Amino acid sequence: MPEDAPPRRRRLPLSEYRDGILAGNRYILARAITLVESTRGADAELAAELLDACLPHTGNARRIGITGVPGAGKSTFLEALGLHLTRERGETVAVLSVDPTSPLSGGSILGDKTRMEQLATDPRAFIRPSPSGGQLGGVARHTRESMLLCEAAGFANIFIETVGVGQSEVTVRSMVDSFLLLMLSGAGDELQGIKRGITELVDVVAVNKADGDNVRAAEKARAELQLALHYLIHANHTWTPRVLTCSARTGDGVHAVWQALLDHRQALTDSGALADQRGRQAGGWMRESLRHSLEEHFHADPRVQAAWPSIEADVLAGRSSPFRAATAVLAIYFRKD
Amino acid sequence: MPEDAPPRRRRLPLSEYRDGILAGNRYILARAITLVESTRGADAELAAELLDACLPHTGNARRIGITGVPGAGKSTFLEALGLHLTRERGETVAVLSVDPTSPLSGGSILGDKTRMEQLATDPRAFIRPSPSGGQLGGVARHTRESMLLCEAAGFANIFIETVGVGQSEVTVRSMVDSFLLLMLSGAGDELQGIKRGITELVDVVAVNKADGDNVRAAEKARAELQLALHYLIHANHTWTPRVLTCSARTGDGVHAVWQALLDHRQALTDSGALADQRGRQAGGWMRESLRHSLEEHFHADPRVQAAWPSIEADVLAGRSSPFRAATAVLAIYFRKD
Repeated sequence: MPEDAPPRRRRLPLSEYRDGILAGNRYILARAITLVESTRGADAELAAELLDACLPHTGNARRIGITGVPGAGKSTFLEALGLHLTRERGETVAVLSVDPTSPLSGGSILGDKTRMEQLATDPRAFIRPSPSGGQLGGVARHTRESMLLCEAAGFANIFIETVGVGQSEVTVRSMVDSFLLLMLSGAGDELQGIKRGITELVDVVAVNKADGDNVRAAEKARAELQLALHYLIHANHTWTPRVLTCSARTGDGVHAVWQALLDHRQALTDSGALADQRGRQAGGWMRESLRHSLEEHFHADPRVQAAWPSIEADVLAGRSSPFRAATAVLAIYFRKD
Repeated sequence: MPEDAPPRRRRLPLSEYRDGILAGNRYILARAITLVESTRGADAELAAELLDACLPHTGNARRIGITGVPGAGKSTFLEALGLHLTRERGETVAVLSVDPTSPLSGGSILGDKTRMEQLATDPRAFIRPSPSGGQLGGVARHTRESMLLCEAAGFANIFIETVGVGQSEVTVRSMVDSFLLLMLSGAGDELQGIKRGITELVDVVAVNKADGDNVRAAEKARAELQLALHYLIHANHTWTPRVLTCSARTGDGVHAVWQALLDHRQALTDSGALADQRGRQAGGWMRESLRHSLEEHFHADPRVQAAWPSIEADVLAGRSSPFRAATAVLAIYFRKD
């Protein structure tokens, strides 16, 4: 009986989502992001229409990625910087997360605990934790769409946070203008080791926890990193990554990190590189969107659905090779009949 | 003029590749891996036939993944363990790499320098550096295929090495039976931080460089990690990851690490989990192979090729949204005409 069905929050009409977002209504924005994250078919269609309606109002925010190993102090840093921006500069701040769920346990790496408690209650701030579960590709797509909704809602600074575990950093790099790496001093050999990987992605590096007994070690790490970056940077770069120290706990140096991020974005804008970079990013997202749709279409094919269980069972049981099986089911999919 | 064309090494006939591999000919094996890594169409067809011919002779090796941050001592460890296996146990060893090329510079993270110099000249060993360039997906596919060729050539122990930067570890985990993490002591907070991410992937952890002044610190790190793993492991696991210390430089503890890997594989075999795991891995590779083929087919469509340049140009220039553009080009691809 419909009367006995558990209460479920209705979807709003498109116009209510759109008008609410464009008016900067954080409650509607949060519900719109939930819509975008939904995996239900009807929601996906409405979400696509909503994104289209919002697109003309996007592109104006500073898009900033932030990464670092767990324990580097990302949340504390974002709280300190976010409060500086909202309270002292009167700016708006949105924080989104790309949290690559563990492929085995489904557990979150960034953690589910409440973080940035002061910033979360600031009327100029909007904090959205990562959806739990899901593949990196899906989380990334939803994060990018959520970012566009935040832009349409008028947020001037959007931070996209991720953990320093590799692929998710490349993903975040593909949706932001500037990328900040938070490090700790005392990483020793590892600090050298990451040079070739991560430093090509970052625009600003901050050695965090430069307070108390740790000030000297942080400064030493900063100098070494700056020197290393100097040798690594290609000649055609318009920007040499800047390395600073800061203490998110005491607030020391946090403003300077923000200034470095502003300087980077200004350099990008002045050289015309910002438009190029955003264009390349959009191209990447088009290809990602294509891949996703091709796979969906394939698995929706009734002939594939009919053949799939026995073909997959043979592979799982070791009776046929993955490559042979893929070839067989593709032949069914592409058969004209 | 053909006479003036630079000399190019001919492809061999299928039977020569197959017979050479099955006879354990390392020279032919190396050429077959080059064939598998080739991106040329005619090579791909021959490579697929060769893999089919070799498949009945695969599945018998110990497949072991090894990861760790740059500087953790992976090469030194593999050289020490490899020489122990070949010289003292008379076993054969193949070492392959999954080296996620930097997406920006195209540079290798594992490095191109000659490594494992002694092992490389051992007649019972086969070392294959990672192909330079290419996306992780392609490198991973080729590495898995190379692993199968090594198995067909009779190698009893196959090590697949990667760097500790995230996604490539998940990829390697998807092709091996056992996974070894090399760590360093003194990683402090970071050591705690990685718990939720990597420890779910690993079966054996070795705290390396446990020599000289570092013995005590390594032992402390080992004890902490073992305790942490004890609390993290799910009740339904048949194996609790084992943590050891070793010094790849002096050789101390390297045999014990090998014994732990043997114990892990024995536990998998006894419980029947090995067959399940290999089945699940094959299922994953079937889906990966499907994704790859769907994309290839899409981009080979003449209607897509005709429409692509202007649609992509509009996206790169910011004139249309990536999602709209993807929808438009998909409509062309799926149009019946």
